Amino acid sequence: MRQAIALSAGVLFLTNPNPRVGCVIVKDGQVVASGATQAVGGPHAEVMALRQAQERGVDVAGSTVYVTLEPCSHFGRTPPCVDALVAARPARVVIAMSDPNPLVSGRGVARLRAAGIDVSVPVCADEALELNPGFVARMTRKTPWVWVKSAASLDGQTALANGVSQWITGPQARADGHHWRARSCVVLTGLGTVLADDPQLTVREVDTRRQPVRAVVDTHFQVPETARLFDGGRVLVFTCMVNHDKAQRLADRGVQVVVLPERDGHVDLMAVMQWLGANEFNEVHVEAGARLHGTLLQADLVDELLVYFAPMVLGPGQGMFALPGLSVLGGVQRYDFLAPVTIGPDLRVRARRADRWARLLAAVSTDLSGGHVVPAL
Amino acid sequence: MRQAIALSAGVLFLTNPNPRVGCVIVKDGQVVASGATQAVGGPHAEVMALRQAQERGVDVAGSTVYVTLEPCSHFGRTPPCVDALVAARPARVVIAMSDPNPLVSGRGVARLRAAGIDVSVPVCADEALELNPGFVARMTRKTPWVWVKSAASLDGQTALANGVSQWITGPQARADGHHWRARSCVVLTGLGTVLADDPQLTVREVDTRRQPVRAVVDTHFQVPETARLFDGGRVLVFTCMVNHDKAQRLADRGVQVVVLPERDGHVDLMAVMQWLGANEFNEVHVEAGARLHGTLLQADLVDELLVYFAPMVLGPGQGMFALPGLSVLGGVQRYDFLAPVTIGPDLRVRARRADRWARLLAAVSTDLSGGHVVPAL
Repeated sequence: MRQAIALSAGVLFLTNPNPRVGCVIVKDGQVVASGATQAVGGPHAEVMALRQAQERGVDVAGSTVYVTLEPCSHFGRTPPCVDALVAARPARVVIAMSDPNPLVSGRGVARLRAAGIDVSVPVCADEALELNPGFVARMTRKTPWVWVKSAASLDGQTALANGVSQWITGPQARADGHHWRARSCVVLTGLGTVLADDPQLTVREVDTRRQPVRAVVDTHFQVPETARLFDGGRVLVFTCMVNHDKAQRLADRGVQVVVLPERDGHVDLMAVMQWLGANEFNEVHVEAGARLHGTLLQADLVDELLVYFAPMVLGPGQGMFALPGLSVLGGVQRYDFLAPVTIGPDLRVRARRADRWARLLAAVSTDLSGGHVVPAL
Repeated sequence: MRQAIALSAGVLFLTNPNPRVGCVIVKDGQVVASGATQAVGGPHAEVMALRQAQERGVDVAGSTVYVTLEPCSHFGRTPPCVDALVAARPARVVIAMSDPNPLVSGRGVARLRAAGIDVSVPVCADEALELNPGFVARMTRKTPWVWVKSAASLDGQTALANGVSQWITGPQARADGHHWRARSCVVLTGLGTVLADDPQLTVREVDTRRQPVRAVVDTHFQVPETARLFDGGRVLVFTCMVNHDKAQRLADRGVQVVVLPERDGHVDLMAVMQWLGANEFNEVHVEAGARLHGTLLQADLVDELLVYFAPMVLGPGQGMFALPGLSVLGGVQRYDFLAPVTIGPDLRVRARRADRWARLLAAVSTDLSGGHVVPAL
């Protein structure tokens, strides 16, 4: 299963909005074929592995198939994988995560079992979920998995008071940040960042065949048409107002203007996430200023923090999150720290909402096998 | 050598102001005896190991002795270890660090070599230095090794704006903080912390036979005589003014009032460090508020930062370091991050001044063996 999970990690930048899935076929103690889901519209992992077996002249009958997600049982962009598996007659299928969609969860397993195939599920669900939190979030709660990326000094300053920030963290941390952009479906920023830094928000520091969509939260539709963000590729502008001429000019350049309700003087960010979920965006990489970061935190829309700390102390400057002051510690949201690592001279810290992760894990750990259960927590 | 270093780590809380030293004697491929330096006035590591060999009836002649610091060649509180070694006639002595005192560095090695003993030095100096940065700093630059301990939210807040801070980090992080108190020679705080929190600053969460001295920086000698700090054990008050009656009353309770020059309106902190160095304090554990932490940073007196981050975001509150704002990034002091670890739900980050560490390492890596050199950087 770990090999199947590694294969799914190999298509981390590729399969969106489909889940990243890996599949390994073992016969007589040997790996005889393997595969991973391809770009959208292309074959899924099971089909890739079965095709490889066929090319190699291996009969899959009697084998054990390891797959990181319950095989699909419906016609989507491709025919159901479960049909291909049933036709291949493996003796056993081992599945990391059950299908997170409550409407179809268990159907793939039931079809396999009805064909006389032994099924074990869930197996290593926690590790497999690391590759697909966005897909599982979208299927279960209808909104994407959202992380906020920030880079700061050890005392939490993203820039000096005068705005100087290039470069607090080093090139290795920036490249790692591009890895997180590359795996996301959409890189989201705020108007303030566009005006201050005019970023491209494209993936440049890691190799990828797919660029994520870029998006800007721009309550009053003030984004300059000259922004580098609009230099090609799909871009979304979330706004509460619309200037039809400007929207038309931008639309001609591949920019979609999405008008959403206002809330507390800015675009309703929950509406942004619901729109993204409804439009098949799995993972949202937020890379903005303290204001948007703080507003997302206050709206309780952040699942994970991705913070790069530079080994320096700056003193008063610009913080990571603009928030109102608290008077008690009681209601503070707590995160789980994931294994911290140094990246070049910098430190990368991931902090994840434990409650939300547990909910995703529960959604993919349905006991469908009458035995092999991975506990949800 | 790693076993000898581990033995020195076993007396981390004990030997101050002497260095922590470990010694392992190997004969015919077997460890035949070992030892570590005892509390001040007690035997050093080499003598402990030689005694154990004697008790076990092992003849050390022809053996290899591993020791984490160059054996002393002078009469201090105990007779010179080098005499005991020469008398025991090992074939070879392997030494992690040369003596950091430039006046005696190499004398122990020369005495051993003159007795026909083969000597290798330095070996694993970097790892051995981890156990004794304070001793090496005091010997080479006449001031202690200073770390600042802080506990904060992920956005660098040590408390809410109203001062609420109990408890941002958890009990495991607090216990780890006591480990760092326990290894220090002195726990240093500021008057502000005494007035705000009335801390004891004793070691309670880890086992130790030695309590570090506690000290407060109190420019105008305003510390209340009722402070819990004065509830027993040796305490230092660094001040610029003295009220002789108050000083006498405190002296009767084991408190030493040290009058030092003023600088920029507060006790000259370099003078504090020089006084501590001259009085055999190796490691200073600073646990104070943003003001003293910031003043120490500005005075360039901090060798290491020890920060516990709690997995939460607090928004505006009290920062870790009170510093003036910068306008350029150029002159910012850079640190090296040491391996970060999670401790319970919290994250411990150590950041060390690379330039200063390199200087200490160079001081104990003198090539005395005509070959086996560990490069200083």
